[in-house]
Amino acid sequence: MPEAHRSASPIDTSSAASAAHNSRSAHPLRIAILGFGTVGSSVARILVESKPLGLELTHIFNRGVARKRVDWVPSSVVWSEDIDAVLASNVDVVVELAGGLDPAGGWVRRALEAGKSVVTANKKLIAFHGIDLERLAAAKGGHLKYGAAVAGGIPVIPGLEQGLAGDRIERLECILNGTCNFILSKMETGAEYAPVLAEAQAKGYAEADPTEDVGGFDARAKLAILMRLALRVQVDPEEIVPRPITAITAVDFSYARDLGCTIRQIARAEQSEGHLAAAVGPMLVALRSPLAWSQGTENMVIASGRYGGDVVFSGHGAGGHPTAVAVVSDLLALAHGSRRVEIPSAPAHVGAEFEVPHYIRFLVRDRPGIVAAITTALANEQINIRAIVQKAGYPAGALPFVVTVEACNTSALQRALAPIRALDCMLVEPLDLQMLE
Amino acid sequence: MPEAHRSASPIDTSSAASAAHNSRSAHPLRIAILGFGTVGSSVARILVESKPLGLELTHIFNRGVARKRVDWVPSSVVWSEDIDAVLASNVDVVVELAGGLDPAGGWVRRALEAGKSVVTANKKLIAFHGIDLERLAAAKGGHLKYGAAVAGGIPVIPGLEQGLAGDRIERLECILNGTCNFILSKMETGAEYAPVLAEAQAKGYAEADPTEDVGGFDARAKLAILMRLALRVQVDPEEIVPRPITAITAVDFSYARDLGCTIRQIARAEQSEGHLAAAVGPMLVALRSPLAWSQGTENMVIASGRYGGDVVFSGHGAGGHPTAVAVVSDLLALAHGSRRVEIPSAPAHVGAEFEVPHYIRFLVRDRPGIVAAITTALANEQINIRAIVQKAGYPAGALPFVVTVEACNTSALQRALAPIRALDCMLVEPLDLQMLE
Repeated sequence: MPEAHRSASPIDTSSAASAAHNSRSAHPLRIAILGFGTVGSSVARILVESKPLGLELTHIFNRGVARKRVDWVPSSVVWSEDIDAVLASNVDVVVELAGGLDPAGGWVRRALEAGKSVVTANKKLIAFHGIDLERLAAAKGGHLKYGAAVAGGIPVIPGLEQGLAGDRIERLECILNGTCNFILSKMETGAEYAPVLAEAQAKGYAEADPTEDVGGFDARAKLAILMRLALRVQVDPEEIVPRPITAITAVDFSYARDLGCTIRQIARAEQSEGHLAAAVGPMLVALRSPLAWSQGTENMVIASGRYGGDVVFSGHGAGGHPTAVAVVSDLLALAHGSRRVEIPSAPAHVGAEFEVPHYIRFLVRDRPGIVAAITTALANEQINIRAIVQKAGYPAGALPFVVTVEACNTSALQRALAPIRALDCMLVEPLDLQMLE
Repeated sequence: MPEAHRSASPIDTSSAASAAHNSRSAHPLRIAILGFGTVGSSVARILVESKPLGLELTHIFNRGVARKRVDWVPSSVVWSEDIDAVLASNVDVVVELAGGLDPAGGWVRRALEAGKSVVTANKKLIAFHGIDLERLAAAKGGHLKYGAAVAGGIPVIPGLEQGLAGDRIERLECILNGTCNFILSKMETGAEYAPVLAEAQAKGYAEADPTEDVGGFDARAKLAILMRLALRVQVDPEEIVPRPITAITAVDFSYARDLGCTIRQIARAEQSEGHLAAAVGPMLVALRSPLAWSQGTENMVIASGRYGGDVVFSGHGAGGHPTAVAVVSDLLALAHGSRRVEIPSAPAHVGAEFEVPHYIRFLVRDRPGIVAAITTALANEQINIRAIVQKAGYPAGALPFVVTVEACNTSALQRALAPIRALDCMLVEPLDLQMLE
């Protein structure tokens, strides 16, 4: 009778498989690393130093691999620049760390086609093709894991899949790009954008062409991945139009501080009663909010659930070692037969409409009537002004001042700004930022 | 050939099982809730409202169950006060929410003996008997999950098991008891201990006998669980001697603030080069540290890894709904065939020796020579004084003042305090607190 009961239970079926795995743990997972840059070499370093049970590094692939060779990797590891040979070998798991859609996407597809599993840190690939690749993995008997694709060493993806699947997450507020956080948390201390970007580039935190980071494209891809796991929606990342942080000046940090705020690049998404919205860009965050605490290249994710309230994850979102921790953790999960909790998700279109207070900074050649024109335009859209702030000490020929408004629809604000933008006194585009409270 | 390769790979073996589970997802997991209090009814509420795929609530057990009945549970659910009948039924998973070692421990053991799986929020049971119960589960083909046992709705346990297993965690600094955090974060605003405890009791945050919480026993059990998963050591929780928060007064918060600090109940553990130490009790934390941010009943865990650096988890550590989220997430993981990543751990003895700066507050009847006696006793143990702080406005007959010392061994400080305690001017025991920086 107990025997019959056991075989009728889905739990026991799975546990038999787990037992089956344990009995063969003498055969470790054979691992190929594709891409031996910062993260790839950190993954190898952890595998070699920590010797996690059940994992064996067997192949390292890189173009021009000869110049990549290091002496601390066991001599049994095959160094190769022949991707076909690596994919045709007997490796069980391919760790893809080359990044980008092409050729990395093709390699991942071929590995999954061959029934291998894939662990990747490639946010772009997962954001744009994750669903298809997961289907392919399932069809061929492999697994796809990408815990390193969002927020590096912070276990947000396992946290959402394994620890918050029982909740209904309704809101995400995230800092997902370490480069932007480094730049903005430095500017908070008084510096201007250009020299801080140069410092970030010198430190290796920012690319020579920083557009992917400062333009918000990197954070957008990561947000799309989190939206699928947290909000259970499959969105086209390109439907989220990011706003760059490049328009932020030291003046904005000065005004923000007077308002009890600072500025961060925020990736946010909200779902309620069929309404789905997402935005990526610089926003004001209250100094007392966790979002203001993150300094340097840190990342942070705040997931707000209907049942569990706010959960905050923070830590090092990038860098070789933290990202490698996520990769090795995914490898260990595969070796232990741990499955992803498949959170059901459905395709959805994402809008940009939030009801939120705004900060609007103007830079004008001063003359009578400017405030009257601005307040009239706002009033015409039923937008309530919260404060008009003008600090002393700026020249009348290039005068920055700020208007904050009560919560209003982002689209209404854009309508109000159209005639304001056309005023002849405007020296630059007015800068409107959402204020998170 | 691909077929042969597949059967030789541990990954593919497990994935076959996962497929097997998916094919039978028409049979949801049958769930019995033992204990229909705040958390039990929240678990039922989520199961009924959210209808997570693959989960079916079939039994609710409670003593005197008639008075517990609610009308929003489906009529198919069996309400029972007969534990034998529930354990003998065809439920697949027993959700144990009664708490305590007895009789809950016996129920869990019987369920596992019968090959059922168990999901529990019972930190005491897991801290003292988790290893044995996991062995029993493995032997009988069931699973034991306890994501709700530490930090309620914050996914710390899945984060450690699934997302940080690839790191080597060397240090934990945690806020694990919501009652103490509520009391201390309230006292931070100027209140004294007794009225705040009364308020916590009125709000249901503290028991009539608050010893388990304010004495540090609850946090100690949770720390022992985290030490196993993070530091990979199996410790007897009773080897960690907790210190109560009851000796903290409003004066201490006032002095702490002057030092750029506040006071929290901290559970900390550290492992380096074979040295293992743990402590639970009130400690000074820098106002700029994440530990100072947690307000009210919030919990926080900071795990510091050799490779990934600091990862911070925070959120609602207690309460019906947040704890229920962790329980339902564990149930979903079981339904999806997700296995725990078994982090290897070994039995270890835990000491209490930290090298750390200290805050020492004295309450004295003032007379000449007190500071000389104290500083001599400290000097005899080679302990360097950082500052002596005495605020104005206190009567000479009951004068509080503070000495802070540079990092020193906790045992050396205790030796130095022995002659100081014996001074006739001491009105109360000197209060020594670790200062986390």
